[in-house]
Amino acid sequence: MPSFSVPHALFFDVFGTLVDWRSGVAREAERQLSPMGIKLDWGSFAEAWRGQYETGMEEVRAGRLPYANLDIIHRRNLDRILARFGLEHLDEAAREDLTLAWHRLDAWPEVSAALTRLRAKFLVAPVSNGHTALQVALARRNGFCWDTILGADAARDYKPKPQVYLASAEALALAPRACMMVAAHSYDLAAAAQCGLTTAHVARPDENGPGRGENAPSVPVDIAVANLTELADALGA
Amino acid sequence: MPSFSVPHALFFDVFGTLVDWRSGVAREAERQLSPMGIKLDWGSFAEAWRGQYETGMEEVRAGRLPYANLDIIHRRNLDRILARFGLEHLDEAAREDLTLAWHRLDAWPEVSAALTRLRAKFLVAPVSNGHTALQVALARRNGFCWDTILGADAARDYKPKPQVYLASAEALALAPRACMMVAAHSYDLAAAAQCGLTTAHVARPDENGPGRGENAPSVPVDIAVANLTELADALGA
Repeated sequence: MPSFSVPHALFFDVFGTLVDWRSGVAREAERQLSPMGIKLDWGSFAEAWRGQYETGMEEVRAGRLPYANLDIIHRRNLDRILARFGLEHLDEAAREDLTLAWHRLDAWPEVSAALTRLRAKFLVAPVSNGHTALQVALARRNGFCWDTILGADAARDYKPKPQVYLASAEALALAPRACMMVAAHSYDLAAAAQCGLTTAHVARPDENGPGRGENAPSVPVDIAVANLTELADALGA
Repeated sequence: MPSFSVPHALFFDVFGTLVDWRSGVAREAERQLSPMGIKLDWGSFAEAWRGQYETGMEEVRAGRLPYANLDIIHRRNLDRILARFGLEHLDEAAREDLTLAWHRLDAWPEVSAALTRLRAKFLVAPVSNGHTALQVALARRNGFCWDTILGADAARDYKPKPQVYLASAEALALAPRACMMVAAHSYDLAAAAQCGLTTAHVARPDENGPGRGENAPSVPVDIAVANLTELADALGA
């Protein structure tokens, strides 16, 4: 039996933990831009865009900008990197369309089946910085069935601010200790643990490109697994 | 083909529209109180409790009390009716337990299968005055699979305030016109229509006891059906 208190609910980080944003954004960018004759290193483009992620959210977390959903943040971040790729000529419509690449990401291979197993035993919800409409799109595309969607939209702030984890537990009328945060990112798990949640690290060694992802947590966690199938096994789901 | 614009999302009222609160609360009250030797007309008890519903929510809608979720409102309302049934001696624990009766309600017979059909074609979400934890409990009990849970908790206010309908459409990044409110209550549909949503009335002639429910809408609606199976048929789901 596990050495931590078995949770009632599992909270999932989504970008990187459940879905492969790098190859998905690279594919969508190529699909939209290559017909315009644009040739890029699509993986580098995806990485550069994601590279603005923390900057964009930090403006909200620090209170310098009001809460705006991740479509708006992604769009701001896109505007910041286009010149670097010689794409400053892209028009509004193309920028809007490109921003929806983040709605069209595929799950890592084991995720959908493992989530179905986990849902049979636990309440399951995304606690992501992605907003509700984006999470609905990803869930529909990948066949996830969530109990509800929690996270940034519900809390009107971004992880790793404590309010996001605490509001998510409160929405389900659960103590933080009854909730387990599942993520491929140590900073997310450290913040969740600080709020009293239990924590599970999932290795995604290729998240940022081959060999460039967290293969193991850099902070104490309750359990570390290679993938969600292993988590379902460990939790007896 | 329908004469209204076909929606992208269906928003469902829950108490009375999807679940039979009267017989469920009556059954749960009897299960909890009869072992204490209490004998009541359980249906009348359920009706009296529900009879305080609008009063309890109006205090929030009018801004006299801050937003409190429906467990808190149900509990306040219970305290108000106990003396009428000679139950003023019930202790805290019994009152808390009784309040959870509202989490243990069964769906009307056709609902679960019809929702599965509707989900294949539309985004589906409860837009109820019940909060997230309560909706999760009802969904788990009855096998509903929602895309997400919207309504009072997300809007921090109660229907029929416009904000509840508008915030629900916004959460899915949809125009109000792309959302259809489905309810057994004309007041709910009138408010939704005022916000620009399309509307479907579902007949629940026995909601408040035999023959005491809305058999037909008293306001203009886009479609009126006898049950959710008929709605699925009409929408081609």
